[in-house]
Amino acid sequence: MRLAPLIGPDLQDAIAIGPDAVREAVSEFHPEDIAELLEDLSAKEAVLLVRALPTETAADVVERLSPQRQVLVFNAIDTGRAVELLSEMDPDDRVDLLQELEEDDAKALLSALERREPEAAEEVRELVRYEPETAGGLMTTEFASLPPDTKVWEAMDAARQLGREELAEMLYYIYVCQPSGELLGVVSLRDLILSDPGQSLSEIMIANVFSVKTSDDQEKVAHEIARYDLAALPVVDDHGRMLGVVTVDDVVDVVIEEATEDAQMMGGVVPLEDSYFQTGWAEFVWKRGSWLVLLFVAQLLTATVIQKNKAILDATVELVLFIPLIIASGGNAGSQSSTLVIRAMAVGELKPSDWGKVLGRELLIGLSLGIALGLIGFVRGWFAGETVEPLAMATAIGTSILAIVTLSTMIGSLLPLLIRRVGLDPAVSSTPFIASVVDVLGLIVYFAVAQVILHTFFGV
Amino acid sequence: MRLAPLIGPDLQDAIAIGPDAVREAVSEFHPEDIAELLEDLSAKEAVLLVRALPTETAADVVERLSPQRQVLVFNAIDTGRAVELLSEMDPDDRVDLLQELEEDDAKALLSALERREPEAAEEVRELVRYEPETAGGLMTTEFASLPPDTKVWEAMDAARQLGREELAEMLYYIYVCQPSGELLGVVSLRDLILSDPGQSLSEIMIANVFSVKTSDDQEKVAHEIARYDLAALPVVDDHGRMLGVVTVDDVVDVVIEEATEDAQMMGGVVPLEDSYFQTGWAEFVWKRGSWLVLLFVAQLLTATVIQKNKAILDATVELVLFIPLIIASGGNAGSQSSTLVIRAMAVGELKPSDWGKVLGRELLIGLSLGIALGLIGFVRGWFAGETVEPLAMATAIGTSILAIVTLSTMIGSLLPLLIRRVGLDPAVSSTPFIASVVDVLGLIVYFAVAQVILHTFFGV
Repeated sequence: MRLAPLIGPDLQDAIAIGPDAVREAVSEFHPEDIAELLEDLSAKEAVLLVRALPTETAADVVERLSPQRQVLVFNAIDTGRAVELLSEMDPDDRVDLLQELEEDDAKALLSALERREPEAAEEVRELVRYEPETAGGLMTTEFASLPPDTKVWEAMDAARQLGREELAEMLYYIYVCQPSGELLGVVSLRDLILSDPGQSLSEIMIANVFSVKTSDDQEKVAHEIARYDLAALPVVDDHGRMLGVVTVDDVVDVVIEEATEDAQMMGGVVPLEDSYFQTGWAEFVWKRGSWLVLLFVAQLLTATVIQKNKAILDATVELVLFIPLIIASGGNAGSQSSTLVIRAMAVGELKPSDWGKVLGRELLIGLSLGIALGLIGFVRGWFAGETVEPLAMATAIGTSILAIVTLSTMIGSLLPLLIRRVGLDPAVSSTPFIASVVDVLGLIVYFAVAQVILHTFFGV
Repeated sequence: MRLAPLIGPDLQDAIAIGPDAVREAVSEFHPEDIAELLEDLSAKEAVLLVRALPTETAADVVERLSPQRQVLVFNAIDTGRAVELLSEMDPDDRVDLLQELEEDDAKALLSALERREPEAAEEVRELVRYEPETAGGLMTTEFASLPPDTKVWEAMDAARQLGREELAEMLYYIYVCQPSGELLGVVSLRDLILSDPGQSLSEIMIANVFSVKTSDDQEKVAHEIARYDLAALPVVDDHGRMLGVVTVDDVVDVVIEEATEDAQMMGGVVPLEDSYFQTGWAEFVWKRGSWLVLLFVAQLLTATVIQKNKAILDATVELVLFIPLIIASGGNAGSQSSTLVIRAMAVGELKPSDWGKVLGRELLIGLSLGIALGLIGFVRGWFAGETVEPLAMATAIGTSILAIVTLSTMIGSLLPLLIRRVGLDPAVSSTPFIASVVDVLGLIVYFAVAQVILHTFFGV
């Protein structure tokens, strides 16, 4: 289904020939495919392609480009063409693009847009007020709204009109609003077709319509849409006045974006702004290095713990063999728990107030897993006894593993809840972070347990 | 917006009073909210609630229940009511439910459904053939299709008819198909409203419509819908005949589900079938324990590596202090790389064939991070020298860390590509898995580098 590799070579020929050949070459393709192609063209070819495309298609293509390419294209085309494209773009994409440009360039373009299409410039000024990752930042201001006393036949006419002018991005719903803007209900195009033309919208609308506030987080918006299987969700201000609409296709992108962010945080990376290949060396080193250095410094404690327990290690040198094994078991068990809990919170299944329930479950599971791994450790320990008898070493290793796995399971499950409780994103309690905490604790527990068992029970 | 806590207490009272009170209590609420409530009710109350609800609402509610609750409810209500609910449910949900029941119960229900609504039973037989995580398993067979010579006004009439009978789950698109079923194009309800009533569908339809095959993976379906911002995607057989449609709201669920699955795999857990709280002790212990045991057994190698290098450790006891630090640095750096690469593959940005490009980037980044951590290690090593001079110990530790971080970064980025290449899900190269591989390799590198540096350069 990826068409880019197929049309690529032809298109490059067409660009060399001229605008008509370009229009001919791309006439059959989806803007998404043209955009994908454009990402791989040279800067010069990319600009020629955007110049050659019919304005509406060019705007659809530009909307789908990466921010870098958008900036590249807009810096290369003349202001007249730029304003043409801007006014064809969806309001939310228009704002995103202007925010990517240099401030002076954006201001100049906005003034030019103001002269040509004052309404489009006004929309920008309105939307730019909202944070990018909120309902306000995600919404488009193009939606169809009609007063409650509109008749069905009038609404059909209005829908036809809007559809022709391509003014409403999402013409499956018509929102019923007071002249003051207050949202009263919603009518789907399907309801409209099925109703008696003489009825008024207030009679056929669904009242009690779900809506979100402009400042609501995009993750919340995504969950509402997913929960209630909505095609679009209206966005209202504090007085219930409708300002825009978030559509389900934008939400799919949000869900994918949030999953990537969470995965990166859970892998111990500060979330990247751009995609893997579009992120430069400096950003990578900074976003990975900052976490790595922090974890490394925390891990320095392990050296101190070993140093403090030198006497035990000198007395029973076999204990050294199990240091990596013991701390890794804790790290693995803990990271399983934290992953499960972080993800359950992300999908809204778990709240910090459920900590008691989580504690009970994880204690039971941690003990079960600890017994399983402890038994294997017992067997391996049996064959490691050198200075002490096999049973003593086996018991020391097995018990330490049981203790550490149980403890790590609890820490891995409760730490994300605590981090969420204090208002941070639980995904910061990443696998490497949990592993580091558990490494230090694991060593302390290991030496303590081993000493007690060897000393108290076996008189070593 | 969560209504469940608000209506919960009232509803329990209403259940005690009787069916009319229940219908009154829930009349204002969305099936999703009623379903959420029902999850927390006792088995007895849940069944009373389903019995009391109007059939259509009850079916909408049952569709949204967890599989466990569905089974509980269906095992408790009589066959007549079960068949009523089944025939009201969407075909895809109907099949999912029947697959959850005991085989005998499902067969009995299907026969009863056959007698009451042969068509619904036929749909089940058709859909049950497809794997659950494919386009076929995700699609519904309720869609609107009309032949190409249908006039716009006839299509409007047909749409009204279908809408009234609630037959087409997704009535925003009408698919234009040959009488043989071959998919030719698509017309949106919006196009229909905007067109001249006398035109035929073949004139106004969009040909070249995107479609997927029944056997295509649900992840692919989700990506196509997200890429092209579609509201629905038709599913065709090998001959291009249309069999069903996947809608964007199902896809949002798929994306969330896949992200959860990936996160769990990356955290070293076999993906859970159900949500965190609905997964029982035995399943948890099995799905976490199998990975933990596997990793534990692999980690046993670390003890062997240390045993083999006992001579070096005996000669320079300070080396013990840095064992956890060294292997953790490798684990953290490696898990960062694997997370970034796995996620980039999941969103389709990276393919196994890009390995050369990845190698180049990660080598550079790994070296940079290795130098940064190596310098800190150098400083700490300086203060650890006991049997050897500070500079020797500092150099050995710093160089080891540089080598291990660089190596781990490469392994973490290339192993997921390799795993994908051999046809497995790259997310199996979870953080714990990478950490285990890197632990063993890290120790080998540590002892080798330390020995070379101490012996060759400092004559220890």
